[in-house]
Amino acid sequence: MHAINHISQLRGIIPPMVTPLLHQNQLDEKGISRLVNHMITGGVHGIFVLGTSGEAVSLGYPLREALLRQVAEEIAGRVPLLVGITDTSLEEAIRFAAIAREVQADAVVAAPPFYFPTTQPALYDYFKTLSENVALPLFLYNIPSHARIALEADTVRQLLALPNVAGYKDSTGDMMTFHRLQLLLKDQPEKVYLLGPEELLAESVLLGAHGGVNGGANILPRLYVQLYEAAVNREIERMTILHRKVMAFTATVYQNGKRVIQGMKAALSALAICQDTVAMPMPPLTTEEKTVITAYVNQLSTDF
Amino acid sequence: MHAINHISQLRGIIPPMVTPLLHQNQLDEKGISRLVNHMITGGVHGIFVLGTSGEAVSLGYPLREALLRQVAEEIAGRVPLLVGITDTSLEEAIRFAAIAREVQADAVVAAPPFYFPTTQPALYDYFKTLSENVALPLFLYNIPSHARIALEADTVRQLLALPNVAGYKDSTGDMMTFHRLQLLLKDQPEKVYLLGPEELLAESVLLGAHGGVNGGANILPRLYVQLYEAAVNREIERMTILHRKVMAFTATVYQNGKRVIQGMKAALSALAICQDTVAMPMPPLTTEEKTVITAYVNQLSTDF
Amino acid sequence: MHAINHISQLRGIIPPMVTPLLHQNQLDEKGISRLVNHMITGGVHGIFVLGTSGEAVSLGYPLREALLRQVAEEIAGRVPLLVGITDTSLEEAIRFAAIAREVQADAVVAAPPFYFPTTQPALYDYFKTLSENVALPLFLYNIPSHARIALEADTVRQLLALPNVAGYKDSTGDMMTFHRLQLLLKDQPEKVYLLGPEELLAESVLLGAHGGVNGGANILPRLYVQLYEAAVNREIERMTILHRKVMAFTATVYQNGKRVIQGMKAALSALAICQDTVAMPMPPLTTEEKTVITAYVNQLSTDF
Amino acid sequence: MHAINHISQLRGIIPPMVTPLLHQNQLDEKGISRLVNHMITGGVHGIFVLGTSGEAVSLGYPLREALLRQVAEEIAGRVPLLVGITDTSLEEAIRFAAIAREVQADAVVAAPPFYFPTTQPALYDYFKTLSENVALPLFLYNIPSHARIALEADTVRQLLALPNVAGYKDSTGDMMTFHRLQLLLKDQPEKVYLLGPEELLAESVLLGAHGGVNGGANILPRLYVQLYEAAVNREIERMTILHRKVMAFTATVYQNGKRVIQGMKAALSALAICQDTVAMPMPPLTTEEKTVITAYVNQLSTDF
Repeated sequence: MHAINHISQLRGIIPPMVTPLLHQNQLDEKGISRLVNHMITGGVHGIFVLGTSGEAVSLGYPLREALLRQVAEEIAGRVPLLVGITDTSLEEAIRFAAIAREVQADAVVAAPPFYFPTTQPALYDYFKTLSENVALPLFLYNIPSHARIALEADTVRQLLALPNVAGYKDSTGDMMTFHRLQLLLKDQPEKVYLLGPEELLAESVLLGAHGGVNGGANILPRLYVQLYEAAVNREIERMTILHRKVMAFTATVYQNGKRVIQGMKAALSALAICQDTVAMPMPPLTTEEKTVITAYVNQLSTDF
Repeated sequence: MHAINHISQLRGIIPPMVTPLLHQNQLDEKGISRLVNHMITGGVHGIFVLGTSGEAVSLGYPLREALLRQVAEEIAGRVPLLVGITDTSLEEAIRFAAIAREVQADAVVAAPPFYFPTTQPALYDYFKTLSENVALPLFLYNIPSHARIALEADTVRQLLALPNVAGYKDSTGDMMTFHRLQLLLKDQPEKVYLLGPEELLAESVLLGAHGGVNGGANILPRLYVQLYEAAVNREIERMTILHRKVMAFTATVYQNGKRVIQGMKAALSALAICQDTVAMPMPPLTTEEKTVITAYVNQLSTDF
Repeated sequence: MHAINHISQLRGIIPPMVTPLLHQNQLDEKGISRLVNHMITGGVHGIFVLGTSGEAVSLGYPLREALLRQVAEEIAGRVPLLVGITDTSLEEAIRFAAIAREVQADAVVAAPPFYFPTTQPALYDYFKTLSENVALPLFLYNIPSHARIALEADTVRQLLALPNVAGYKDSTGDMMTFHRLQLLLKDQPEKVYLLGPEELLAESVLLGAHGGVNGGANILPRLYVQLYEAAVNREIERMTILHRKVMAFTATVYQNGKRVIQGMKAALSALAICQDTVAMPMPPLTTEEKTVITAYVNQLSTDF
Repeated sequence: MHAINHISQLRGIIPPMVTPLLHQNQLDEKGISRLVNHMITGGVHGIFVLGTSGEAVSLGYPLREALLRQVAEEIAGRVPLLVGITDTSLEEAIRFAAIAREVQADAVVAAPPFYFPTTQPALYDYFKTLSENVALPLFLYNIPSHARIALEADTVRQLLALPNVAGYKDSTGDMMTFHRLQLLLKDQPEKVYLLGPEELLAESVLLGAHGGVNGGANILPRLYVQLYEAAVNREIERMTILHRKVMAFTATVYQNGKRVIQGMKAALSALAICQDTVAMPMPPLTTEEKTVITAYVNQLSTDF
């Protein structure tokens, strides 16, 4: 365990790290090193590798493992490390969780298996079995935009009651569900509630979330850390100003949610942190789109 | 190449084989042997392993490989063997295709990578790259109900023009799309067009499909082979009678599409061919549901 | 009752008539007259006004009524007249059905109320109440692409058992559902089963439907009547050739389903039958799109 | 104009009034009177009749008109009156807007026409034409859960630039879109931005919305007014407590969004304000569901 004494104390900004690539099947090792240090220097409270932003499921397993090993080494215990193990196969998820344990990560994170339509009771069984077969604390990861199936509020509540389920990462983008879950979870304060889309960081932290898994913190870690702190401290004026900066950033760099991962990589490339290569089947940006992002990022450094 | 001289001659009933399991992570080897022989004795024209019906993506890779090796051995060249390599990761799909080649399968079958939303041009690039990196002929597999993204008609047309793309397996369940594709593909007669849902076997073969990848042929291979032949021979009266038998079968055993894989396994268990264990996160049938299927299957043997 | 002795004898091609307009809120009366006579001369077996193709719900009620009165007069009992009464309000549907009765139409046709999400039992109650409050025989109209909610197979079965429910118009475009319903309805042979999308006319009539509500029969009534007859008579060769002509027509004129109503009106305009004005919020065709359709229609006359 | 000098000054809680009914086609006139006075006494800043909560499109037009006339009379200029004119037909929307003008309402509110799929430019044309043909200021109403089609952010921005478009009612339930629109609309401060779901009242008002169109304010007007004021005044502690009361209310009375209108009517019935009859095709509550709501409402009076 690193930087915190117990996973239940996890708070703040935990960027879902993008995976710097030279080619479809080759890591950008220098980029990885620069990116990890850029985020930690920027004050982030943890790093989440091999999530959706990390394009995990598009990568071969050997490459996923190499990435994990390098990131663990670069972090060197400075901040907690969370590892995505989302898989369609329970066995493969368990196998990868064992590697995460080996590199002394702090937790694993799993979305529902995402090919077969299924039921909430079957999802409960899947996650219960998973939680009993991984040595690290498990975070549930709700991302129906990609996994297609949602963990419903009551399923989340039941799963969070299990001993090895440490928390919940909500990437539904749905504040209605957030508020309903806050109501359901009021008796489980030791479980960690993180929310995905950075556009909702301000209000979710203000109204009860413990932190944000915000892609933009790959690029502008300090901005997100400051916004998190403003929300925690209920400095509404400051929070509002920082929230608007986040909105302006995502409007241009993500094209309002249309090109999130490509936009992050283009912005990191503009900052000379890593390559902007994406893994198939992610559609690459056009040259024009990259130019817009580069111009935007270049004028950012003075503003932010 | 087995039983046919060239993959472009593939015709008829190619059941998507279910994967007999003792437990979540253990093959039912005796069941596999009985099932392969049951289908071949029933006259099927090929076998497709590790597709959706085979629950491929729910299984660990070592188990997928063991299954493939046993099936290849059991078939022993009697009918063509098609192998599902659908994966979210291009590298993993390529790696599994190499194993398929090693066991002397006849073709590989791939659905779109199914986690990230993407575009038709990006899907084209993915499949083009895949087709250039697999040694066996490649079938495109369109199954938006599970892969979420559909291969649109024009993308299918473009991909079928590639030299190593041998055919198309349509599991959209959408006859509108079927007819549109028939129009688009009229200049590519050497490419094989197979259709998935058995409820559409009669009309699709009558109007131009080359065969059916029908789950029910795991259980009643002869019925599906006879229906295929009636459609090819334009024996409309006979075709209609057999089509109605298929509809009655799927209404009960699949609960009209609600429990397809579980229903197939329950029916095979009732016939003492293999276990009915399903892999997580597939919801298992209730005892009542199994009883209904068992009773139905027991009275079938005399009728079919 | 016109041309047939009883509504249960309704068979064949019943075009969903488009509504010729001079402006958003003004009928093209000469166009209406020409269109009705064009279809009847072409051999159609009935006419369906104020359905989806008629843009009924986009029109003001006074205009809907004026259209109905003119069409009833033009038909003058030569073929059965079916009248769409689909409405979000039960009272408005009942009120319009009374006008249909007054002009001596033969049946009314209603899709589910289409604003509020609801349940199958609530839909059953709605249609039961409706059927008890309209004097003419009622056809159920299943069109989830527009009404959003589908009548599920079992609800259709239950509703068709009601005395004043005469039949079912299936515009789901889903042959799986068609075959399931055929199985469910085998004991209700006196109820009329019509299917919407013309791309499915051949196979649906061959396998049990009583006729087609096909938009293209506004333009090419004879082609659709011939295809219907070929399917009824099981002339498979001839049926296949005519089916391909229909597919070629819809590929160009409807842009494969993307611009159906606008395409029909553009084709009718090219034939000098009526104006091509559509009612808001239907997006009008571009000049280029109209040019393609006009060129296509001009070369048709010799082929068809 | 009532209670405010100009529609651009509209702020606060404007309940979407439910429509008290004795039967499917008969108003509960005493209930209407009690309900209007209950809300105004509770401090609401306006009343919105014939919206989604008012089940407008399920009612016959004569009944809609009678309701509007009675409500206008009951309000008697004490608070602004907004009138829903949403319709599939442009002409019917314009016709109803003329009645709203006649009874001296303050604004009309229209969602997109909701039967035909269409494009954003066609929606722009529809709303532009509508805004030019209604005498009262027009509010756009974005409710894709019911109208199926969404007004996209850029379409909203363009439409709000039109002179007779006074504001925007957002019932998307989507705070991502809210924040994006806030960014787009920062140069149009005179346009009124109201948000629908009460679960989002706190954060939306805190971050820029002008008020809430909250169904629960039919029942507990004072609670919603207090929450609105706490958010405006940035009293975060108080706001959070009141927000949790709203969440507890909606969890029980709306069954977390599953039975919103029925729940509101059951709660009003428990308070002896009006009948709980709903219009077809709304599924009525079971007796058990009503009992739960009645018990909940009975213990509320002391708490709230």
